[in-house]
Amino acid sequence: MSGSSKEIEEGLTLAPKFDRDGLVTVVATDSASGDLLMVAHMNAEALARTVETGEAWYYSRSRKALWKKGESSGHVQRVVEMRVDCDQDAVWIKVEQEGPGACHTGRRSCFYRAIPLGQKDNVKLEFRDAGKTFDPGQVYDKK
Amino acid sequence: MSGSSKEIEEGLTLAPKFDRDGLVTVVATDSASGDLLMVAHMNAEALARTVETGEAWYYSRSRKALWKKGESSGHVQRVVEMRVDCDQDAVWIKVEQEGPGACHTGRRSCFYRAIPLGQKDNVKLEFRDAGKTFDPGQVYDKK
Repeated sequence: MSGSSKEIEEGLTLAPKFDRDGLVTVVATDSASGDLLMVAHMNAEALARTVETGEAWYYSRSRKALWKKGESSGHVQRVVEMRVDCDQDAVWIKVEQEGPGACHTGRRSCFYRAIPLGQKDNVKLEFRDAGKTFDPGQVYDKK
Repeated sequence: MSGSSKEIEEGLTLAPKFDRDGLVTVVATDSASGDLLMVAHMNAEALARTVETGEAWYYSRSRKALWKKGESSGHVQRVVEMRVDCDQDAVWIKVEQEGPGACHTGRRSCFYRAIPLGQKDNVKLEFRDAGKTFDPGQVYDKK
């Protein structure tokens, strides 16, 4: 559909490989710190809007809806750079994260727990950079 | 199945939310530069082996097989830190990438093309950090 593997990998035409739900995976990192903020998904419409506007739009699988990051929280993501991977099924956006955080739990990043290595069963997580930077109840209910 | 949303988000029990194919999304970044190297998937077995051994194992959706990163190329990824996200359907590994690169196209990272912002139709990509660091033909066929 989107051309040969060679074209997809080495060409300069954007030909996203959407999965059977019409989505690509998106990785958002903080353009200043380089930290991973969140992993989410875009459908064709979210991808097109992000490219056109330079602000991050996603597709929520749980809510089955297009959403603009920050539409309820005000925590907009301005895209500084956008990249696509070799087989065009994943997108990387480096963003300026407006406001105190990207995670709906009230933290800067969604990745606030470490999985310690070397464990075999009943793996226990450890909090890492897990302090809350905002109150999600206040941010998401204030409308 | 894996407990309440509160337990999944705020608890310290690893309870991965595998998708209908039994996979979680994995983001691998370079522990030194912070750059995004690749996005891939793990099934339960790949996740368990990665946690236990500290080296990255994945599940290939195209080959429908468990694979250890570097098993044919020698480009092993040693995990420096492993994290899980709020809803436990994505994993972040910071890795020391053995050898010249992580991408099967012969580059350090899979994200070697930028999507310039502001475009509306027929989006054209631009190469970015796209120099090849190894010859994939030589690396993957040498066995």
